[in-house]
Amino acid sequence: MDTTTPLYRQLAGHYRRAIDAGTLAAGDRMPSVRALMALHGVSLSTALQACRHLESDGLLEARPRSGYFVAAPRRAALAALSEPAAALPDPAQYVGIHQRISGLLARGQHEHVHTNLGGAYCAPALYPTEALRGAAARALRRHPQLFGEGVEPDGYLPLRAAIARQALRNRVQLAPEEIVITNGCTEALNLALRAVAGTGDVIAVESPTYYGLLQILESLGMRALEIPCSPQTGISLEALELAAQHYDNIRAVAVVPNLQNPLGCIMPDAHKARLVQWCEARGIALIEDDCFSATADSDAPPAAAKAWDGSGNVIHCASLHKVLAPGMRLGWIAAGKWQARVEMLKFGLSRPNEMLSQMAAADFLASGAHDRHLRRLRTRLRAQREWFAQAIAAGFPAGTRLGAPRGGMHLWVELPAQVSSEAVFDQALQAGIRVMPGVMFSNAGRFDHCLRINCGTPRSAQIERALGTLAAIVQRLAA
Amino acid sequence: MDTTTPLYRQLAGHYRRAIDAGTLAAGDRMPSVRALMALHGVSLSTALQACRHLESDGLLEARPRSGYFVAAPRRAALAALSEPAAALPDPAQYVGIHQRISGLLARGQHEHVHTNLGGAYCAPALYPTEALRGAAARALRRHPQLFGEGVEPDGYLPLRAAIARQALRNRVQLAPEEIVITNGCTEALNLALRAVAGTGDVIAVESPTYYGLLQILESLGMRALEIPCSPQTGISLEALELAAQHYDNIRAVAVVPNLQNPLGCIMPDAHKARLVQWCEARGIALIEDDCFSATADSDAPPAAAKAWDGSGNVIHCASLHKVLAPGMRLGWIAAGKWQARVEMLKFGLSRPNEMLSQMAAADFLASGAHDRHLRRLRTRLRAQREWFAQAIAAGFPAGTRLGAPRGGMHLWVELPAQVSSEAVFDQALQAGIRVMPGVMFSNAGRFDHCLRINCGTPRSAQIERALGTLAAIVQRLAA
Repeated sequence: MDTTTPLYRQLAGHYRRAIDAGTLAAGDRMPSVRALMALHGVSLSTALQACRHLESDGLLEARPRSGYFVAAPRRAALAALSEPAAALPDPAQYVGIHQRISGLLARGQHEHVHTNLGGAYCAPALYPTEALRGAAARALRRHPQLFGEGVEPDGYLPLRAAIARQALRNRVQLAPEEIVITNGCTEALNLALRAVAGTGDVIAVESPTYYGLLQILESLGMRALEIPCSPQTGISLEALELAAQHYDNIRAVAVVPNLQNPLGCIMPDAHKARLVQWCEARGIALIEDDCFSATADSDAPPAAAKAWDGSGNVIHCASLHKVLAPGMRLGWIAAGKWQARVEMLKFGLSRPNEMLSQMAAADFLASGAHDRHLRRLRTRLRAQREWFAQAIAAGFPAGTRLGAPRGGMHLWVELPAQVSSEAVFDQALQAGIRVMPGVMFSNAGRFDHCLRINCGTPRSAQIERALGTLAAIVQRLAA
Repeated sequence: MDTTTPLYRQLAGHYRRAIDAGTLAAGDRMPSVRALMALHGVSLSTALQACRHLESDGLLEARPRSGYFVAAPRRAALAALSEPAAALPDPAQYVGIHQRISGLLARGQHEHVHTNLGGAYCAPALYPTEALRGAAARALRRHPQLFGEGVEPDGYLPLRAAIARQALRNRVQLAPEEIVITNGCTEALNLALRAVAGTGDVIAVESPTYYGLLQILESLGMRALEIPCSPQTGISLEALELAAQHYDNIRAVAVVPNLQNPLGCIMPDAHKARLVQWCEARGIALIEDDCFSATADSDAPPAAAKAWDGSGNVIHCASLHKVLAPGMRLGWIAAGKWQARVEMLKFGLSRPNEMLSQMAAADFLASGAHDRHLRRLRTRLRAQREWFAQAIAAGFPAGTRLGAPRGGMHLWVELPAQVSSEAVFDQALQAGIRVMPGVMFSNAGRFDHCLRINCGTPRSAQIERALGTLAAIVQRLAA
């Protein structure tokens, strides 16, 4: 029992944690003062004081004659991200970013990092590790000769069936046989790109885009054509059209229509439909990476671009490592008209995946626990993002712009133009904090004044301090 | 108790099984007649009859005044494989074999196969599945958050350390940090080829060679230069030299120096040393696939070509799926001077491997059980190969030639020239038997009169019948 903190603050802390964790969400009714007295064995004045304390922190709002309710989060007092101009994009470039990226990643690993805000996963506590461990142990018991036998071609069929059922929620109709299990989404993207393009070919990508995609393009000797991406609506279809008019050699468009990495935007359905049609009409393959859609702030997940695919021109790639298990390298690809070619390439690349994690994942996906996990994950991520956003709004200098992602685990921050994210990265590392500098998200050297911050870790005093340190670094550099 | 079979035959059967399984090996002393009487409670005449029965079957030999000994296996009464001429190889070709291979593989899967002699693994019973299962269960218990955390870059360090210790036996010195864990040897070979060559480049390969390598070359758009391979000494260095004089664009030589697939030969050490020097002097990368060396008929495994590598010009690829666990897709690569490039390519291709099977394998490799497993595996494979060889010798038509591999799980059979292995393949499939036709082992259409037969399954009446059926098919086609 904590005897130094006043009782009302302890009680307020209890409910603050519940709100932060999303157990109590915006609009939920707070237990009445009378209920608080009974539940916690406190006096009327302690219960009232706790509620007023939470109200003054903006976490509760009093409604006349109804009591206290969890307040809608106060939007951070920072401007929204700027919209890109729909001008003609620069010509495609061979990607030469690996050296820089691996240098940054290596520095990030060698320094003594105590707070990692640079990753692309959530904290282990947000994943159903215990249930997956149980499922793996069951699979080991049920299949005594698992390690002594060869693996199933194209992946474990019950997992492919479970994924096909999940895809229905994104309005995608797939037979299990149309899905090939891969070693993560990275392998899926490799297969997709190799199925449709070769060395020197031009791939249109979002700008900013996921640095892993740039590394893949580099390793395959393909060229990246960076198309501006709106933080609200995703890749600019106008800029893409302009690019296609000027550069006639685009082989594929590779996008993250849902919860774009790093911006967190979701393309409106009308845009997805137009993009699918546009690609099909021009004979340009559309590759979509749909790793994050299950984390969208909505019980009905956004549709995948594949939902509008009438001709097999859309290659759908996704994975379980962001939303279910970072430790399982499980991705998949549904390659439409390139299915046979992708099967051939996968067989020649790494043979089928191992079975054990596929079995464990299939077991979990087929259970009701998966839906419960996703609901909890969404709620917690939303609360965490909100809390991170408020901490950033409170400490970062004027001129900072902040994204309002509609799901996922990232916040994209535009710093005042004079601040270099590489300088922030270096100084943060010296303080034991890791963030992702914006330069990693463009081959053309854009976004040096941006940061990607991971919000996948639950609120803690340590992270609060780290965000404070980060704010101070940016303040200093902006001055 | 079997009452229909005479007692002496039961006793003989008991020792026949021990000899087949390798428990009693060539040269081992058989228990004396007196010992047999005491051990099995049989009469002098039963014990003697059993020994004479085994002697007449060629399994025992009587030595004057010493008793019975396990006989050296009678060499099959078939000629040895023919040696290739060291002529100038045909020019390199783009590989276009996938269609044919996948057609054959697909037919092999759709028919009702009851006896698969076409695979490249042993029967599950020959692998330590139970111990690996236990190791995996322990890893799950020890690492509760395994699935919730990211994976280790370049692979699980204790596994890399265990592999480095194993490599010492092949006379290879590697630091754990020089080893990158891959999704099987297939991914390792992809990485090796992509590290040193690009689209259109020429890779010298053995002829016949592993069809998987041809598929990789095809998927990467590289050209195969088929160099004749001796069933005794491996790739012909003379033919390679001739090829290099005539075709000046060889980028890499990709070979299996130990227990070549499909021939089963081991390159003499002097050849390995010459090959390594030759490649280095010409600036041609040497890629070696060393998946089988732990199955060589010798307690001292053969040296890897990497053992002679002074400059980092040899890329060493290997795996555990042939010798330890087909169900674990664990391979590795030690890429010498291309190490950094291979690390970059692996990260861009599939990120690091999952951890669980790495942990289980590391646990097993570090235990004494691994050495015991390998000794047992070698002994059993040797006995099984011998038994398969004798069954083939007994039934196949005159003009058949048979390999005498020095380890591994394959026999390469040269049929009389007029017999097409595709016809054998088709007719065998109709009888429920799967073998690998020789056409799969060359892009240039060689070896149509050859078969690769897997000996990884213990002797059984079913396999005996299948080999009889196969012999009858070949007899018919040869007539």
